[in-house]
Amino acid sequence: MSYRNRLEKCDKFTFALLIVGSFLSFFPVTISAQTLAENLGYPPGTKLIIVHADDLGETHAVNAAAIKSLESGSVNSASLMVPCPWFPEIADYAKSHPNVDFGLHLTLTSERVYYRWGSVASADKVPSLLDENGYFHHDWEHNQHIDAKEVETELRAQIERALAMGVRPTHLDSHQYRLIMNGKELFDVMLRVAHDYKVPVFVNTDWFADYPYLQKSVGPDDIVLDHTITIGPDVLPEKWADFYISALKNLKPGVTEFVIHPGFDDEELRAATRERPTWGAAWRQRDFDFFNSNQFRQMLVQENIKLITWRELARMAARK
Amino acid sequence: MSYRNRLEKCDKFTFALLIVGSFLSFFPVTISAQTLAENLGYPPGTKLIIVHADDLGETHAVNAAAIKSLESGSVNSASLMVPCPWFPEIADYAKSHPNVDFGLHLTLTSERVYYRWGSVASADKVPSLLDENGYFHHDWEHNQHIDAKEVETELRAQIERALAMGVRPTHLDSHQYRLIMNGKELFDVMLRVAHDYKVPVFVNTDWFADYPYLQKSVGPDDIVLDHTITIGPDVLPEKWADFYISALKNLKPGVTEFVIHPGFDDEELRAATRERPTWGAAWRQRDFDFFNSNQFRQMLVQENIKLITWRELARMAARK
Repeated sequence: MSYRNRLEKCDKFTFALLIVGSFLSFFPVTISAQTLAENLGYPPGTKLIIVHADDLGETHAVNAAAIKSLESGSVNSASLMVPCPWFPEIADYAKSHPNVDFGLHLTLTSERVYYRWGSVASADKVPSLLDENGYFHHDWEHNQHIDAKEVETELRAQIERALAMGVRPTHLDSHQYRLIMNGKELFDVMLRVAHDYKVPVFVNTDWFADYPYLQKSVGPDDIVLDHTITIGPDVLPEKWADFYISALKNLKPGVTEFVIHPGFDDEELRAATRERPTWGAAWRQRDFDFFNSNQFRQMLVQENIKLITWRELARMAARK
Repeated sequence: MSYRNRLEKCDKFTFALLIVGSFLSFFPVTISAQTLAENLGYPPGTKLIIVHADDLGETHAVNAAAIKSLESGSVNSASLMVPCPWFPEIADYAKSHPNVDFGLHLTLTSERVYYRWGSVASADKVPSLLDENGYFHHDWEHNQHIDAKEVETELRAQIERALAMGVRPTHLDSHQYRLIMNGKELFDVMLRVAHDYKVPVFVNTDWFADYPYLQKSVGPDDIVLDHTITIGPDVLPEKWADFYISALKNLKPGVTEFVIHPGFDDEELRAATRERPTWGAAWRQRDFDFFNSNQFRQMLVQENIKLITWRELARMAARK
């Protein structure tokens, strides 16, 4: 939903508050779609994207596809799952490539069936996050008790392990949006931890209508992107490129994060994801293929779309 | 080293003790190479082998190669690494194939560089087993303190997770022989835990000369195999089949466990083991290839070698 559409949904009182808020806020990046881009030195109306690969560390097939995409320039940012068994591989890469834009993909679930992982924090410190076999839950059932203090313990443990292993994260985001979509308490935990470590959190105004506590919690110093685009299970495999081309053609001004999931459709990834096709091996190969295609590169030129990273955004925020 | 050779190394007093021991012991499976086979109903001189795949659960490539080998009959026993991320895949297989001879490959190290795992027990219960990043140590340095009580906690946690996930282990063995070769205290922990769960431990008389505490610790009710054969880094890749053929031709009477490491030389396994060739992807493919070859099957017929499993050995022990 666009910024304009969201405003149209607001009643007049809320709109008035937003306007007042924009004057009261010293640097109202949370309010104006143009402001974030303008503060990076771009003229109003500029379209900027972060092409962001998720789930690094989860499998080797995802690490390998992400590294190839980063090195070809088709992806310019990514985030790492610290609890996963292939984290050491991508941490080693991050350590030896300190200029690559790597964040941490804070992880509280182990959603697959045949291939699983648990917490970084000592298991007895985070019992509400673990299932009866000691792995992160596959899913969070409705009304499942997830203890916010335990979430904070686990997030800090993930960040500390990443730092200890040489990763210097440029941002934090949340695997399966668990920390975004499960209420103010968990989002505030992520935000507090991010503030402590002085790294931005991935949040954008597209989410504010459905999760209004996000807007309430972010402050004037938080970086808030304008939009996000991610492909969903409703897109047929043969329409994959069409979806992204349409999204790029209709891109709105401001900063948009494309959340993508490149991976190689090989034995490992097929086995790890075989219980369902969503975000599976073929899905991830399609993402890899589109973003490594000439079609994608040509679209960037044709639509005059610029690339930007979390590192650049954070640098801008630091200059404020 | 053969039973006879070992006896030749004993002094006369020890030899006399062994002979007395064999009479005192109600069922001296630890003493006579022939007795174990004879008690299974085989005539003296029978050659029996367990073809045992190690490291299941470690990677998908190892699980897939082991399952294919078990289903073709070229491998008849295997053991599972509970702390590893692919354990759920092989536990699911074990649960749905309850007659397959699966033991637990008790694991206290995470020896690879780019792909790693930690304890099943809560991390703060087993600090001496974990490195500064929370994984099992790559290796145990000389004089490194490994707390035996923590080892016991971890072994019990691994067995409990396996049981909870539907695995009914037929035996226990030790990844990298850590619990065999690191002194009486750790071996006794494994043996005590095995006795509590009423499953045999893989130990054989070939090891007694180098690790005499093994012989001191096992009792008359423990199953002690006669020999073990495993390939080492001194064998050139092109001599792989020659090594196994020679071992089969020169097999001694009694029960011998072939400890093998089948795996597929694919992207996942190559990446997971890339820091050194020993027990790497190509090594494991060679093991898969030999034991799935007609040459191996023909050797069993030609040399009149019978196959036996841990399940059959345990059944025999239970009848005593």
